[in-house]
Amino acid sequence: MHNALYAQAGGITSVINASAAGVIETLRSYGQTPRIYAAINGIEGLLDEKLVDLTNISETTLERLKRLPGGAFQACRFDLDTIENRPDQYERLLQIFSHYDIGTFFYNGGNGSMLTAQKVADYCQSKGYPLRCIGVAKTIDNDLALSHCSPGFGSAAKFLASHFLQATLDVQSMSASSTKFFVMEAMGRNVGWLALSAGLVKDVIADLPLIILPAERAFDESAFLARVTDLINSHGYCVCMASEGLRDANGKSLAVAREEHANGKVYTQYGGVAQKLAQQVEHALNIKTHSANPDYLQRSSALCVSATDWQMAYEAGAAAVHAAHKGEHGILPLVQKTQDTPFRWHFENFALADVAELEARVPDHFLTADGMDITEQALEYLRPLVKGERDMKWHDGLPDLRPITWTQVEKKLPDFKK
Amino acid sequence: MHNALYAQAGGITSVINASAAGVIETLRSYGQTPRIYAAINGIEGLLDEKLVDLTNISETTLERLKRLPGGAFQACRFDLDTIENRPDQYERLLQIFSHYDIGTFFYNGGNGSMLTAQKVADYCQSKGYPLRCIGVAKTIDNDLALSHCSPGFGSAAKFLASHFLQATLDVQSMSASSTKFFVMEAMGRNVGWLALSAGLVKDVIADLPLIILPAERAFDESAFLARVTDLINSHGYCVCMASEGLRDANGKSLAVAREEHANGKVYTQYGGVAQKLAQQVEHALNIKTHSANPDYLQRSSALCVSATDWQMAYEAGAAAVHAAHKGEHGILPLVQKTQDTPFRWHFENFALADVAELEARVPDHFLTADGMDITEQALEYLRPLVKGERDMKWHDGLPDLRPITWTQVEKKLPDFKK
Repeated sequence: MHNALYAQAGGITSVINASAAGVIETLRSYGQTPRIYAAINGIEGLLDEKLVDLTNISETTLERLKRLPGGAFQACRFDLDTIENRPDQYERLLQIFSHYDIGTFFYNGGNGSMLTAQKVADYCQSKGYPLRCIGVAKTIDNDLALSHCSPGFGSAAKFLASHFLQATLDVQSMSASSTKFFVMEAMGRNVGWLALSAGLVKDVIADLPLIILPAERAFDESAFLARVTDLINSHGYCVCMASEGLRDANGKSLAVAREEHANGKVYTQYGGVAQKLAQQVEHALNIKTHSANPDYLQRSSALCVSATDWQMAYEAGAAAVHAAHKGEHGILPLVQKTQDTPFRWHFENFALADVAELEARVPDHFLTADGMDITEQALEYLRPLVKGERDMKWHDGLPDLRPITWTQVEKKLPDFKK
Repeated sequence: MHNALYAQAGGITSVINASAAGVIETLRSYGQTPRIYAAINGIEGLLDEKLVDLTNISETTLERLKRLPGGAFQACRFDLDTIENRPDQYERLLQIFSHYDIGTFFYNGGNGSMLTAQKVADYCQSKGYPLRCIGVAKTIDNDLALSHCSPGFGSAAKFLASHFLQATLDVQSMSASSTKFFVMEAMGRNVGWLALSAGLVKDVIADLPLIILPAERAFDESAFLARVTDLINSHGYCVCMASEGLRDANGKSLAVAREEHANGKVYTQYGGVAQKLAQQVEHALNIKTHSANPDYLQRSSALCVSATDWQMAYEAGAAAVHAAHKGEHGILPLVQKTQDTPFRWHFENFALADVAELEARVPDHFLTADGMDITEQALEYLRPLVKGERDMKWHDGLPDLRPITWTQVEKKLPDFKK
């Protein structure tokens, strides 16, 4: 009978906190975990002994947690150093785990963070402290390998498709004497899953003059401009969704917002591809264009959550607890589709090490030959993921999303210098 | 007993079609209008005799119309030439009005378009054809003078504030090791009303580290960077909403997307101010920043409509019909507040000529001395305008917003060369 710890890491999703609720409620249902803790700000906060005791979290707070976007427990982008460089970080974590009698560590994060967490678990084990480490899947990018899809993706795709539809109605209605080309930017540094979501609008507006530019395909300016010209000639307007990480045939990104050099790696932040594409079209065709970049809006919207995705995110947390209960460790439960109609899935456990280095890219048969449109197979894949809505609570005209204030556990251990 | 004609012009709002429904239903309730027409694509389409007969529009279509974003009848940015340059345009319109026996012309557009329409009415009158011209107010920019607010503004403000809130939750939760500065771009070429909407988030997140940069105030880079630095030092992050048309003390715009020279005027299209500000902060403070530009998303969202604004837009259409019934012409019904709590208003008629050249800018007492925050008085003004929600219809995971297809009236008149 040991305690459990939950933490969040990496880019958030609009449903990540439903996973937290899934972990907490499922732990409670087994009734074998004396105390349930969450770290504030992931591994980074854990080093600082920033903990919250969730054992007696109220039903009301749990319900609010399930609907709150952002990382309710703060999600760090901090990674541990190697054990060779900073053994003290690992010793510190062992000290924390040991002090709080943590038996299972649920890490809601990307592959990288979870592999690090697994290294911590291995280290603890080697020191005679048995810690189980279980991943909780999440990412809006949908690039988790071996998983049918990623919890968090469906809601981001629903946000993008819904708002792309609405903006298209705007453009369509004014194109005769105003904007004829509109382009929107979707997140996705290396993968075009989110850009693909624009294809769903074809189910609402038949014969939509759409171009998608997923990160998987090299951007060819002349082919792009030729397609824009054709579509404007035939339809009077053209709408486009592009991946932020779009690159040309030489691998050069169209729009780099910032490059950061850290730990010997170059971290590239993308941004501005939509504006760049709008400018290209404007200069080439001398027409009025507009561009939108929803940026964080696509991963933080409680207003446009896919009920399917919401449920999946909750179950990702629950599945992690079920796996821990069966004695698993070093694993990540992933979504496996079990039925097409109606769409059904379950979670299966995969070794963290088997998943970590893989990246799920949009397969070729999801794209037309020129890579600028999506196929019916892609639509069949996307449709179930955005389905379903949940009711929304409002307060005085804005979404009722007051952040939850946690009371941190009083620190017991000496300070640690990260 | 003459017929009526309705048309849309200028940038759309998410509730403009509710005004169309207000016109149609109110005309029907008086029972004195044999036929109700709409022009497709405003004055431009009218010259082409592109008309729809709405006399027998079904209840179902009316209900869909009320909820549809975009301009359901297409909104043109086309203006008539002067009567000296192109008398044939005026003659053509008289020909159309006369052929279809139009007694009242309801123009749902900006001041400019409505003044033009009034010139048409004056011309018709001088030729012995009595045409009444009544404006139907709309603009997301909220810059209509003499009106408490503009139909369309409340919904755009609600969209911006709601999504700014959600993005803030994202930033807040990750700021310890990731993005510390986030900036969003609001429409508003000369006025900062929409940028002000970010202030509403202070009602949800107390002590919000917010900077607003409305178009009314000259941008001072060093004061801005000093404020960003202070807020990040005290709160760990900073969020900002800026008007697209932000200019420095010399009147130079921070971000011009495009300049168009037409009819001896320079038409400036703004875009990119958020990205520009994010870059300034990043370079000056060497921190991670993000920027969003929702662009058309803010004026086309059926998902985030203010029920107050929706009602006001409907009533703008209804008020125009009431005015016509009383024999008014050359007027525009505008919103007058009659009560603070609960918020109540009615419409009063103003001469188009009195309104046209005025522009309502954010008053000084709505802004703090440095212009980078809003006052309680501004919040009191904004709060009622974003209040209330309406239920949303979905279809297979996307908003149920299939465009309405109109059957055009068969053309009877000779073609006209615009």
